[in-house]
Amino acid sequence: MRRLAFLLATLAVTLPPAGGLSAQSADPLPSWNEGPTKQQIVSFVEAVTDADSPDFVPEAERIAVFDNDGTLWAEQPMYIQLAFAIDRLHTLAKEKPELKEKEPYRSILNGDLKSLAAGGEHAILEVLMATHADTTTDQFSAIVADWLETARHPKTDRPYTGMVYQPMLELLAYLRASGFKTFIVSGGGVAFMRVFSEKAYGIPPEQVIGSTIVTKFEMRASGPVLVRLPKIDFIDDKEGKPVGINRNIGRRPIAAFGNSDGDLQMLQWTTAGPGRRLGAIVHHTDAEREWAYDRDSHIGRLDKALDEGRNDGWTIIDMKQDWAQVFPPRN
Amino acid sequence: MRRLAFLLATLAVTLPPAGGLSAQSADPLPSWNEGPTKQQIVSFVEAVTDADSPDFVPEAERIAVFDNDGTLWAEQPMYIQLAFAIDRLHTLAKEKPELKEKEPYRSILNGDLKSLAAGGEHAILEVLMATHADTTTDQFSAIVADWLETARHPKTDRPYTGMVYQPMLELLAYLRASGFKTFIVSGGGVAFMRVFSEKAYGIPPEQVIGSTIVTKFEMRASGPVLVRLPKIDFIDDKEGKPVGINRNIGRRPIAAFGNSDGDLQMLQWTTAGPGRRLGAIVHHTDAEREWAYDRDSHIGRLDKALDEGRNDGWTIIDMKQDWAQVFPPRN
Repeated sequence: MRRLAFLLATLAVTLPPAGGLSAQSADPLPSWNEGPTKQQIVSFVEAVTDADSPDFVPEAERIAVFDNDGTLWAEQPMYIQLAFAIDRLHTLAKEKPELKEKEPYRSILNGDLKSLAAGGEHAILEVLMATHADTTTDQFSAIVADWLETARHPKTDRPYTGMVYQPMLELLAYLRASGFKTFIVSGGGVAFMRVFSEKAYGIPPEQVIGSTIVTKFEMRASGPVLVRLPKIDFIDDKEGKPVGINRNIGRRPIAAFGNSDGDLQMLQWTTAGPGRRLGAIVHHTDAEREWAYDRDSHIGRLDKALDEGRNDGWTIIDMKQDWAQVFPPRN
Repeated sequence: MRRLAFLLATLAVTLPPAGGLSAQSADPLPSWNEGPTKQQIVSFVEAVTDADSPDFVPEAERIAVFDNDGTLWAEQPMYIQLAFAIDRLHTLAKEKPELKEKEPYRSILNGDLKSLAAGGEHAILEVLMATHADTTTDQFSAIVADWLETARHPKTDRPYTGMVYQPMLELLAYLRASGFKTFIVSGGGVAFMRVFSEKAYGIPPEQVIGSTIVTKFEMRASGPVLVRLPKIDFIDDKEGKPVGINRNIGRRPIAAFGNSDGDLQMLQWTTAGPGRRLGAIVHHTDAEREWAYDRDSHIGRLDKALDEGRNDGWTIIDMKQDWAQVFPPRN
């Protein structure tokens, strides 16, 4: 009888309660260090999911939006999509040697990225158009998928999908387990992100909002296709983010996560809604495990949003202090 | 003992099996008459959801898209959104009497809709811009919600949300119970449809794709707003439908339902994908219970899509023959 009681007691501690692990019984955020940041996040989620709380939010309205570059995965030493564009330019130059004679392509193909940086947004857009258009949507997805299979990050030598942040993966899963729908709202190209969003983050293509180029329906002998044209349709950055959220989601999120001034308006729009809200900023403070940058960085500049975040009580996630682990373990 | 056996037998027939009613144990489409149309739909759903079937489709890829006007709810004697626009014009004319002096507004305000029809798309667009813009997104939603509360259909005197098709409600629920995500893809305005889509169809705002006008983020003293500008952003009709699907969903649906030539490209795009597909057209053949119209109608013209549907083996839903009931019972 004492053995049975012992057995039962053991089962009681080791087995999760009926209905699976609840947020209470196991730490849903093991890669987050204990402290005010983690506490703010957990306290928000518990408040909006507790039917007896004055802050309760019905499940259908639990929308959380996440920037991608620098918020869900690394963006240094350059945006990953730009690394894709440069690799693709090398491939295209074999088919179209005339690219080698024309700036800004010539410099890039010669490994000189300074001229690209000097050319600013205009030069970058030109490279994006040259490398992201003139295919069908299906062809483009296949090109991105192939690239992700083989490309490696220059610093860590990991596949780029290994450059996602482990604590954010846990946060996404925790929110979904708490009845949230999670969306990406990024300045990056939507057709690029959708290739890996489901596998990398558990976010399906229809919950990815991003910048778009114009696509055109064409009936070919082989059947209908959508052709990607070298023309900007929509830039999902800064003021564009609330616009994109409204266009694709049609209701205001109750939680938003960003890391740069490009996320400022999305954070303002989200946190200005009625009821309890969570605005959070990933602050890159860890030069050792990742990178440390904010106000002076060309990539992911965080200046106004950091000031406003501190003033308005947004949660500032200090990567060095708050994250026990940055990247997932290598396979 | 025989009484117990009898009781158990009774329970076995009357109680649903553990896990709830399955599609097999109760007819999920009671308002659909038995016949080839219903059979085609059910056979498609069973094939793509049966893990042992060669046609099996993983749940994440079970995307079904529905046109709205004439497919999910009535579009005669005029598009419901146009009825809203005209009512709104009367309200606005009280605030802005100058509208009464200007065509096409003057004629419409005098009850002359023929000039609107004669003015074609251009006149209709003008009326839509005048009645759908110059508010914030929140204000516009409230205006539509108020209107839906009080407006009544001119023929049936029902609230417009009572003009939804009962068989299509059952179909939407059946598909969702079978692991599908259901989307609206309509030429109608997305901001108009999202006000009622969840309540009327069980389709949340983020699964409604439609035409859009430009919205602009503005920081006001009261906080951030999105302002609706009188400028077309995107027309989600004809060739625009596959484009809108690609932009908002990012994968090709496996089932599409429409009722007019405006749905042709969406049906082509959906049915041209690999694996088993369902393309279906609601054919308005019931002058008694609803309306009968197709090739010669200005509203919901069904001509090319009917021919192509018949040639390509799409399911043609004959409203008169296939639907036991058209509208839900009156409350």
